[in-house]
Amino acid sequence: MSADSAQPSLHTMASAIRALSMDAVEAAKSGHPGMPMGMADVATVLFTQFLKFDPKNPTWADRDRFVLSAGHGSMLLYSLAYLTGYERMTIDEIKRFRQLHSLTPGHPEVDPSLGIEMTTGPLGQGVSTAVGMALAERITNARFGDELIDHYTYVIASDGDLMEGVSHEACSLAGHLGLNRLIVLWDDNHISIDGTTDLSFTDDTQARFRSYGWNTIAVDGHDTDAVSKAIAQARTSTDKPTLIACRTIIGKGAPNKANSHACHGSPLGADEVAATRTAIGWTHEPFVVPNEVLSAWRAAGTRSVEAYNAWSSRRATLSAEAGKAFDEAFSHGVPSALADTIVAFKQKISAEKPSWATRVASGNTLEVLVPAIPEMVGGSADLTPSNNTKVKNTADVKGKGEFAGRYVRYGVREHGMATLMNGMTLHGGIIPYGGTFMQFADYCRPAIRLAALMKQRTVFVMTHDSIGLGEDGPTHQPVEHLAALRAIPNLLVLRPADAVETAECWQIALEATGAPSVLALTRQNVPTLRTEHTAENLSARGAYVIVEAEGERKATILATGSEVSLAVEARKALQAQGIGTAVVSMPSWELFERQDDAYKASVLGTGVRVGVEAAIRLGWDRWLGDKGAFVGMTGFGESAPYQELYKHFGITAEAVVDAVKARL
Amino acid sequence: MSADSAQPSLHTMASAIRALSMDAVEAAKSGHPGMPMGMADVATVLFTQFLKFDPKNPTWADRDRFVLSAGHGSMLLYSLAYLTGYERMTIDEIKRFRQLHSLTPGHPEVDPSLGIEMTTGPLGQGVSTAVGMALAERITNARFGDELIDHYTYVIASDGDLMEGVSHEACSLAGHLGLNRLIVLWDDNHISIDGTTDLSFTDDTQARFRSYGWNTIAVDGHDTDAVSKAIAQARTSTDKPTLIACRTIIGKGAPNKANSHACHGSPLGADEVAATRTAIGWTHEPFVVPNEVLSAWRAAGTRSVEAYNAWSSRRATLSAEAGKAFDEAFSHGVPSALADTIVAFKQKISAEKPSWATRVASGNTLEVLVPAIPEMVGGSADLTPSNNTKVKNTADVKGKGEFAGRYVRYGVREHGMATLMNGMTLHGGIIPYGGTFMQFADYCRPAIRLAALMKQRTVFVMTHDSIGLGEDGPTHQPVEHLAALRAIPNLLVLRPADAVETAECWQIALEATGAPSVLALTRQNVPTLRTEHTAENLSARGAYVIVEAEGERKATILATGSEVSLAVEARKALQAQGIGTAVVSMPSWELFERQDDAYKASVLGTGVRVGVEAAIRLGWDRWLGDKGAFVGMTGFGESAPYQELYKHFGITAEAVVDAVKARL
Repeated sequence: MSADSAQPSLHTMASAIRALSMDAVEAAKSGHPGMPMGMADVATVLFTQFLKFDPKNPTWADRDRFVLSAGHGSMLLYSLAYLTGYERMTIDEIKRFRQLHSLTPGHPEVDPSLGIEMTTGPLGQGVSTAVGMALAERITNARFGDELIDHYTYVIASDGDLMEGVSHEACSLAGHLGLNRLIVLWDDNHISIDGTTDLSFTDDTQARFRSYGWNTIAVDGHDTDAVSKAIAQARTSTDKPTLIACRTIIGKGAPNKANSHACHGSPLGADEVAATRTAIGWTHEPFVVPNEVLSAWRAAGTRSVEAYNAWSSRRATLSAEAGKAFDEAFSHGVPSALADTIVAFKQKISAEKPSWATRVASGNTLEVLVPAIPEMVGGSADLTPSNNTKVKNTADVKGKGEFAGRYVRYGVREHGMATLMNGMTLHGGIIPYGGTFMQFADYCRPAIRLAALMKQRTVFVMTHDSIGLGEDGPTHQPVEHLAALRAIPNLLVLRPADAVETAECWQIALEATGAPSVLALTRQNVPTLRTEHTAENLSARGAYVIVEAEGERKATILATGSEVSLAVEARKALQAQGIGTAVVSMPSWELFERQDDAYKASVLGTGVRVGVEAAIRLGWDRWLGDKGAFVGMTGFGESAPYQELYKHFGITAEAVVDAVKARL
Repeated sequence: MSADSAQPSLHTMASAIRALSMDAVEAAKSGHPGMPMGMADVATVLFTQFLKFDPKNPTWADRDRFVLSAGHGSMLLYSLAYLTGYERMTIDEIKRFRQLHSLTPGHPEVDPSLGIEMTTGPLGQGVSTAVGMALAERITNARFGDELIDHYTYVIASDGDLMEGVSHEACSLAGHLGLNRLIVLWDDNHISIDGTTDLSFTDDTQARFRSYGWNTIAVDGHDTDAVSKAIAQARTSTDKPTLIACRTIIGKGAPNKANSHACHGSPLGADEVAATRTAIGWTHEPFVVPNEVLSAWRAAGTRSVEAYNAWSSRRATLSAEAGKAFDEAFSHGVPSALADTIVAFKQKISAEKPSWATRVASGNTLEVLVPAIPEMVGGSADLTPSNNTKVKNTADVKGKGEFAGRYVRYGVREHGMATLMNGMTLHGGIIPYGGTFMQFADYCRPAIRLAALMKQRTVFVMTHDSIGLGEDGPTHQPVEHLAALRAIPNLLVLRPADAVETAECWQIALEATGAPSVLALTRQNVPTLRTEHTAENLSARGAYVIVEAEGERKATILATGSEVSLAVEARKALQAQGIGTAVVSMPSWELFERQDDAYKASVLGTGVRVGVEAAIRLGWDRWLGDKGAFVGMTGFGESAPYQELYKHFGITAEAVVDAVKARL
């Protein structure tokens, strides 16, 4: 470091990252110093020369998005946030790295006000989600024009990110779509936890990405000029995303531990920290960044002020209507057209009483929602005709310059689809929904969880939700998926019973601005049960009495989805035998759990309770109580016509009747 | 077809597959005719010229393995099984396609006696699992020599299979390991459900596979000579797997629906079936294969009889000891050394009373098991030092001709690892176990489910099983994973409380020859609670009273894993206040559920019940009853030292004491 020069070198600026990172990990006694030290030079080039961002206006819709996919290197991101001047990211927060309620947890947790575009840590998620951001950029650009949306998406990804299968799905799609504004900086450091990457990883990664239709560039990741030229070149791409392979040395600067997995996931130790200080010429105390270095960094943090102001001026010239549309799109709020559209649709359906599969009901709900809500962008993982996700008269998002459509063909890439949807939600301007078979919730699960953890409104349309799909058999029949999804905190699992509830569940999903939803929908037809119109969204209470008992309520049948009509049938038989029975539809356990005790008690009743769901019992005891019974599955399904399967597995109105009577 | 020729042509033989497939789908009124019709020629070449198999000795250890990854094309496999003479696969079973309890369900369900090496359907699983079979072949070849194990693994995979991320993970590893006996026949038909594949998929797939270190060959999939030459060439590879891109026409033979997604997933319809008969010159009634064609096929089914006999002779010349070792390895049975090894280890541990993390206890258990059980092959998804999966003095399976090791470096490929392990289990000769963080059970989930559905003993070592991992924070802290795993039918979720239970859980996992297991293990230290040696495996009952109440039992604390010691601490405080309290350790809910009612009642007790687990409540109500209480998590974790997190989330002995007292 040349302390007396007016303008510190990029390497000196990078040293600030290295020092903060190793010091914070040292203070926390845990963490990952190697990656931030290895990628400090690359990040310094990106943030001082290219990234369009304004720490004073951090949620600026047209900022470049930067994703640290290798989330274990969180100190890189926190160092950058502090150095470039995000107000709340103080040096005290850096000192509290990995402590309870600090702004500097072990892995980055989404907070755009700190420059943290998403939560990362589970490898593969960051780079794949960033593909969704880059896609959202192009789609919103097509809608709002270059004046308002015209930015890049940058990613730092590790070997591990690129080994994960989801990176294949998302990057293949990025190449197919020609997302030229996506630039991935690969930390090609040859080191993983087990040792050198060649223990398990000998792909020609650049060739792999070229096979997806990407540009690739290889540079020495410590040669700042070369990195700068590579990024500049990548930005000129017109029809391809770019992978820049940055050959780096993990823990660069640490004289004894660099280039070894010893610096990956543990503090360097006091001796090595001291030796590193000497080696990189950083003589300052821990957590001290000298003024001239900090000033240089803060100046980098103001590089885009002019661009921001120009953008604001352009935004200000919009008509009131156009401005409102733009703001609503990027508000992450509840679409203004939602409630009225749903109520009108419900009224029509209650009157018409169709016997639609709920996937068909969902498709028909989308037929009214998508035209009314321009942010909605649909898609399916190659199951469009089965998922009923495509609305008539919407065009595909074709890619390669054609992004004006509203429907994404994700291919057979369920996990990739889920990550892309998360990226679109995070980017703003889009409310994504995407379909697959509910069985493949398992493929999407890491991304569904991340959506829940990040509090993002991503809507998963999961059809063929039980043995009711019939002949495709146990590989395609979810039996444990409802339970497994209900296990994820902050995820709404919505299983509507009929067309009216399906519309209500769509409303719930779109109103839940801080949570993802899974719509669990049938393949098979179900009758309309809600034949009397109510403007109120009854499903929003999670569970409600859909058919009251005649006479004293002696029994309550609790059911979801396709089994609600079966419960209604059982009730009829019980009532005929003089047993007052209510049916409770429970489209969402999560929402019911939030109701007050009095409401819950009124729904559950005091008599016999029997639960019915074409799925396993796990979780049902919460609602059934000690003396309750459950009619459902006890294991995997079988291949046969669905009516036979319901009989074979004993999920019938008769079985429910018997279960009630056995407990009276 | 030339009915008068002595030997039907390959195309005529393929016509039999086409006819059976379309007729069966037609009869079932559902199914996928397009794929079997498209790949009939390729399959005919493979089965008549190359595949080493003997329908009379279908489980022959050295048979070639054939995996139909695109499981929706199940009629291809059933047709082949019938035509080549697997005894139980009668024409009546073909007629009962997709009917309850037929041998011909919608998707193939593992049954080697029918030539069905694995259950397929969820795309990507087949090709990835086959990599594990090919790896198992090389590892068992290294152990037993060319005389006993020396075969190929063939796969038919679809576009969808190759779009799935797991194919990236597994095929990248296959290239890295140089699995030259693996030959993938890619059904390159340009059609997916949404339409033509170029809607979403424009990879240069051959270039992609070359980037993994594969050979690639492209052929016209209807040119039987070209296919034959390509397979012959692939078999000569010495250090690389081979992808053969077979350009085919989906639904080949159907004059109006071929080359369209219209024939992918629906019956052709009576008219098109009739038109197809004419077009392919197949004049026979539905389900009728004329004698000369059937004879030709049956002859193909006897092609390997000589090879089988020669192999049997070689097998017979083994020494008694070597023969026994071989048989035990391929028996899929309980290792003979298991029980004694575990008992001796438990005795030592009970006496020494270490305070090991259960991951450390697992590592130390493996130190005695792996040397005693030569079938055990370990590995980790690049978390070896964290998962404690590698036993001292075991070498890596290096690949590229070096397969003598016992440890696989899977790289950051959790899902790929899980599929490879399933493939090794299915192949036989190996009992695989592999480690990752429990958080990444989500990544492995589709393969874990498939192991459970296939009843395969695959052992998943999942460490860092709660907020007890501390600073890495919510992205790495499982809170819902225990519940989500418990939801999977036929999966043993084993969460041991201490070192002794860890050894017992290893015994349970290895004795469960028809089920996969997940070992949920702590990062943090726990005390040894089982300080009194018992030869009996107490954990095998699923739950048991680990500390009895002093005096009348008024309360029972139910806990698992690291929370059992916390429960013991709470019990001490309660006993000090005169409240007789028992502690129940519940290492496996599944095993406890199987016990008789009397045992269950004796364990659960009649007094107050409080459950403690550093995870969400879902499922616990089953054990707690109406008046029970639960001390655990209600949402995602946080990043902080773990002791602080337990306090922060109120998972403490004090909280348990309070919960008990509030209910007395």
